[in-house]
Amino acid sequence: MIKARVTVTLKNGVLDPQGKAIEGGLSALGFEGVDSVRQGKVFDLTVEGDDATMAEKSISKMCEKLLANTVIENYSVEIL
Amino acid sequence: MIKARVTVTLKNGVLDPQGKAIEGGLSALGFEGVDSVRQGKVFDLTVEGDDATMAEKSISKMCEKLLANTVIENYSVEIL
Repeated sequence: MIKARVTVTLKNGVLDPQGKAIEGGLSALGFEGVDSVRQGKVFDLTVEGDDATMAEKSISKMCEKLLANTVIENYSVEIL
Repeated sequence: MIKARVTVTLKNGVLDPQGKAIEGGLSALGFEGVDSVRQGKVFDLTVEGDDATMAEKSISKMCEKLLANTVIENYSVEIL
């Protein structure tokens, strides 16, 4: 079994209204000095097998096809 | 300026229908050997100041109050 974490974040320049809303919320709660918030997604996967290199390749394909929208998002795969 | 990454994940035992749907999607796309998928959230914050310890404390408070639902979610703060 291989555990991996995929992190998907918006590319620079892509507007993030959700992040902006969180910024507003933090400020409304009295938190000062928050300059920017950008929200992304994280996927914790468990895949069968023992070959970390193979798993990483396969997970990268999953990102390209389903987990990330590569037009507006970056992704990174980390084998744990 | 301090950059930090907050990762919010569901606690063990909490059902994750979104993760299950992604599992189904991956399997429908022909990806085999995916045992489980759990989805979480990531927040990239930029806060003012130079004191990483203070920033980490402040961001932990933000997590407790807004970013995470500590009943069902765990969070971790990483200063980048």
